[in-house]
Amino acid sequence: MGFDTAYESISEESDSGHRWAFGTGFTDPLAGVDTSVPAGVDGADLAAYCLMLGDDALIMSHRLQQWLARAPELEEETALANIALDLLGQARLLLTRAGTADGSRQTEDDYAFGRAEREFRNVRLAEVADADFAGLVARLLVFSTWRLALLVRLQSSADPVLAAVAAQGVKEIAYHRDYAAQWVIRLGDGTDYSRQRMEAGLAAVAPLVAELFAPSATEERLAGVAVIPAQLRAEFDAVIAQVMAEARLDWPEVGWLDTTEGSGGSSPRAGAVGLFGRGGVHTEAMGYLLAEMQSVARAMPGATW
Amino acid sequence: MGFDTAYESISEESDSGHRWAFGTGFTDPLAGVDTSVPAGVDGADLAAYCLMLGDDALIMSHRLQQWLARAPELEEETALANIALDLLGQARLLLTRAGTADGSRQTEDDYAFGRAEREFRNVRLAEVADADFAGLVARLLVFSTWRLALLVRLQSSADPVLAAVAAQGVKEIAYHRDYAAQWVIRLGDGTDYSRQRMEAGLAAVAPLVAELFAPSATEERLAGVAVIPAQLRAEFDAVIAQVMAEARLDWPEVGWLDTTEGSGGSSPRAGAVGLFGRGGVHTEAMGYLLAEMQSVARAMPGATW
Repeated sequence: MGFDTAYESISEESDSGHRWAFGTGFTDPLAGVDTSVPAGVDGADLAAYCLMLGDDALIMSHRLQQWLARAPELEEETALANIALDLLGQARLLLTRAGTADGSRQTEDDYAFGRAEREFRNVRLAEVADADFAGLVARLLVFSTWRLALLVRLQSSADPVLAAVAAQGVKEIAYHRDYAAQWVIRLGDGTDYSRQRMEAGLAAVAPLVAELFAPSATEERLAGVAVIPAQLRAEFDAVIAQVMAEARLDWPEVGWLDTTEGSGGSSPRAGAVGLFGRGGVHTEAMGYLLAEMQSVARAMPGATW
Repeated sequence: MGFDTAYESISEESDSGHRWAFGTGFTDPLAGVDTSVPAGVDGADLAAYCLMLGDDALIMSHRLQQWLARAPELEEETALANIALDLLGQARLLLTRAGTADGSRQTEDDYAFGRAEREFRNVRLAEVADADFAGLVARLLVFSTWRLALLVRLQSSADPVLAAVAAQGVKEIAYHRDYAAQWVIRLGDGTDYSRQRMEAGLAAVAPLVAELFAPSATEERLAGVAVIPAQLRAEFDAVIAQVMAEARLDWPEVGWLDTTEGSGGSSPRAGAVGLFGRGGVHTEAMGYLLAEMQSVARAMPGATW
């Protein structure tokens, strides 16, 4: 989705209230949607895919929440909180879907608060901490550009639930991407100091980009239901190039993070996903993030209010 | 205890093996000690006091453990790990004592991994994170100087268990204090840059010092058993002054941390302890520390191996 289209989608008056998941016009995106697993689709694969996309949103949301009371201005504080809430809304729908798809009847809370680190399927880009605000907007730009391209295609998924979640998500993420791009441009094309910070932010996220397009067996088995991530690369590169040009920044020349043969290349080999977040192999940051995120649920198991 | 005495105590050949809690000559410091609660002593007060001193050691130990693989040299890595282990050993004895003193039969693990933030009784000095190695040695100097003065007096406690724990702890903490003092002197009386970092380290811990000498009702009720912290101030000041002089540093002129009337003075008013770590009121750092420290026990309740 290009920028012009994205702007249109968020300004559609006919769909007001979907801009924020918890806005005043909040409606259930699954109202009237058939939630049974489509014929011919493996429930376990569908659940695994929902966890991938749901964990991306959940973990990215948690990192954004950590910016509360730390943003440079109140305006950004509110924007980041709303972006975090949008992603949390997407995560809730997707984790809930996972529990129904595989028949395990696990709830969103079971998945969010009951799993161990190696059971989380989010890409590592979602989990890493931000050194500063420039680092955050660099990460948010990459995450939103990738996820928007993904959700646009997921709207035509053979699974009506994924299609409905994607349709709402496209409107939200289009705004997130726009927000991040504006800041990357403002800081990149700003003072020498802001440019330096922005370059450091891009350098921190660049090694985590190749993982976003790595193939997984789950997605390949879910033909027609899931989006094959390699198909998103061209749009991703085009949007990033557009933002870099406006920001007068160069995308850093870096390899991708891997500890095995082929490390340092520009794209992972087939099957490499097992080494990444999708395969449950996370960075050091993930354990600390989960320790915090799960602390209340772990300390008071089964508590309700 | 002055420095000369401290050196003597750690070089006593007759007591080798007590320098590190988990050294090769490890012996049970409570062997042959009567562990019943002494007549006339309130078990609940004794347990509360054991939690204070035990939590100080436990939380300081955890912060030291976070330096593993991050110390500037392997030699310091090993030293910090051993100091952390000494404190963990003290914590284990004290938390175990708490569970027997009040008849609750809670174990060291129950206390360490089952309590909520507001139930921890450690001083806030033990919980704060260190900005760098200079910050760490500043904090360790203050903590060890204070705790050594405390444990020297606790050796004559009317409770034989506290007396035995203190007797072992004095040998350990004398070494910790010496280690920290050497580094404060080396960095303070070093280059301009190391001096600057050392000054920043002292400035970070100075506001947390007054709390160490604040009176609590528990200690006052345990006359003859507990040490009244105000009595440690003169020795503390003398040792710190000696180290500052050798390091060519000035102790920072700061007030003490408090949000109520009287803030900024040089000592807390009577009863102020309720506002401090001893009263369960901790800094923001404490919740994150506990989330990490308790994560495994919370994720796998009752697990054994």
